[in-house]
Amino acid sequence: MIRVAVDAMGGDFAPQEQVLGAMEAVKKCDDIEIILFGRPEEINKYLKPHDRIKIVETRDVIPMGEHDPVRAIRTMKDSSMVKAMTAVAQGEADAFCSSGPTQALVVGAHLIVRRMDGFKRPALAPFIPSFNGGNTIILDSGANLEVKPEQLLQQAYFAHVYAKEVMGIKEPKIGLLNIGTEEGKGRVFENECYKLLSESDLNFVGNVEPKEILNPPCNILISDGFTMNICVKTLEGTAKTMGAMLKRSLMSSFFSKIGALFAKKSLDKFKKDMNPDDASAAMVFGTKYPCVKAHGSSNRIGFSYGILLAASVAREGVIEKVSKALKDSMPQGETNE
Amino acid sequence: MIRVAVDAMGGDFAPQEQVLGAMEAVKKCDDIEIILFGRPEEINKYLKPHDRIKIVETRDVIPMGEHDPVRAIRTMKDSSMVKAMTAVAQGEADAFCSSGPTQALVVGAHLIVRRMDGFKRPALAPFIPSFNGGNTIILDSGANLEVKPEQLLQQAYFAHVYAKEVMGIKEPKIGLLNIGTEEGKGRVFENECYKLLSESDLNFVGNVEPKEILNPPCNILISDGFTMNICVKTLEGTAKTMGAMLKRSLMSSFFSKIGALFAKKSLDKFKKDMNPDDASAAMVFGTKYPCVKAHGSSNRIGFSYGILLAASVAREGVIEKVSKALKDSMPQGETNE
Repeated sequence: MIRVAVDAMGGDFAPQEQVLGAMEAVKKCDDIEIILFGRPEEINKYLKPHDRIKIVETRDVIPMGEHDPVRAIRTMKDSSMVKAMTAVAQGEADAFCSSGPTQALVVGAHLIVRRMDGFKRPALAPFIPSFNGGNTIILDSGANLEVKPEQLLQQAYFAHVYAKEVMGIKEPKIGLLNIGTEEGKGRVFENECYKLLSESDLNFVGNVEPKEILNPPCNILISDGFTMNICVKTLEGTAKTMGAMLKRSLMSSFFSKIGALFAKKSLDKFKKDMNPDDASAAMVFGTKYPCVKAHGSSNRIGFSYGILLAASVAREGVIEKVSKALKDSMPQGETNE
Repeated sequence: MIRVAVDAMGGDFAPQEQVLGAMEAVKKCDDIEIILFGRPEEINKYLKPHDRIKIVETRDVIPMGEHDPVRAIRTMKDSSMVKAMTAVAQGEADAFCSSGPTQALVVGAHLIVRRMDGFKRPALAPFIPSFNGGNTIILDSGANLEVKPEQLLQQAYFAHVYAKEVMGIKEPKIGLLNIGTEEGKGRVFENECYKLLSESDLNFVGNVEPKEILNPPCNILISDGFTMNICVKTLEGTAKTMGAMLKRSLMSSFFSKIGALFAKKSLDKFKKDMNPDDASAAMVFGTKYPCVKAHGSSNRIGFSYGILLAASVAREGVIEKVSKALKDSMPQGETNE
């Protein structure tokens, strides 16, 4: 059995969607057990008793808009997030999942779950949907605004193993986010990363321009946290504004309203393609045990994917395999501090 | 009369669209004269003789995919771009416009047209269309991948005067592109820029997230060239891919095809809103004389706007006004090198 510690109180629609998501997850998957951390009286409003779901009582909740995540993690010892992470760190569970505030989760992953040996800068790696189906892993999505090229190389190794073992991609392709495709483009940082990635035994496909973000020639797209955050937030904003523009155009005349009615099913599918539930979970790369961040506004389906993702990473032994790959592939000086 | 030196040979559809664009521009505006630089035998295929358009013969063309822009500008002395810029630098014309390769244009602006006094890092500033009409000036769009906060402040002053004098905005609002809206977000660079902008007499509205790129709470959005390039290219790619997804969705069933037919006019308008011709010209901020970069794939209408923009900047005396504003507003040590 794989035991997943779930923060039932974190998220815009917690605990309802988190509890319903947990029930969805045990239904989908037979080899997982879930421990819900939170206020029992609130959890029990939604929970149907299940022999593979149990509750551990915690009273505090780290709020979604928490401005001082370090302080929150250090002082809110009885919060659902801290208690669930502590359970993982102490071996009472195998993996962690939460929809709670991202920065607190990343800080908690560092301070409570802790980094795996030799991994310098854990990264946050969500998926984004691709035009031709499938998902692209993108990192670092905000955990470290600025990183060193060697740290980015470690993250690339983690992504490689993760794509292979969890996503089942045989030869994961890795691309570097950059303002042009030719070698030599970008800042000093991109040029150093390019060199390290080219010299590694990873399947590096070169620079990838952000205009290919929804249809990249790779499975894994990497950059520093600041740049990737700019890219992802531009993508989100453009998609949202374009949706609004489309709606405004379609509602502007009688004929186009009729047209929109005829096309409704396709337009709804289009909207769904842009917002897939299973794309909303991000994983922290580089911790000792699997930590998954589900989207803050996850519904039950989205959250159940987060739980299943955390369980998969534990089941496939991703972290042990990354550890081995780093030892085998990187000069010793680079893996140690 | 305002004399605009036009590179007739630069651009994906040159010289045809450049020549037709020049004819369009003299039709739209009575106080401009155009000098077309290029191969007369090719220009004359499209040009109807006009008393305010003349040709200066040049034989070379800097190719669109030029990989070594510095070398090209230095050695291709008889190219249409170099000759047109030289005419401006020598006072034979008042402004310059080209659809030629961006990096060569930026290098030429530095080396031939030269920087205005005290301006350290010229920037490239295009417009992007906003959801609620109007355009946003964005900079730096790739001229300088990395800049110092004081250089960014100078660019902000230029943008302020430009928005006021050329775009007619009374109190232009300036926003800093960042990964969050609160003060303190971002890298050290963003924090230093935030401080300088707050202390200036510019109308600084604070950090702006890239998810607001199509609907920002400001008229001018600034960042370093690398970050802005990532943002703009993500925007372009997302818009393009979403358009393709929408088309695929609409063509997927009989009913939605009928719907699309009914809604065609609105969908076409939507497409046009995303690709306005007049948004495709970028200005170089910080040169001694106005230099405008029209989009490489400009059609005649888009290119005519580029010419008219260059003429407006000269007509309104933007560069003199920026020069005065910098002297008045910034500590002397910051404007000189």
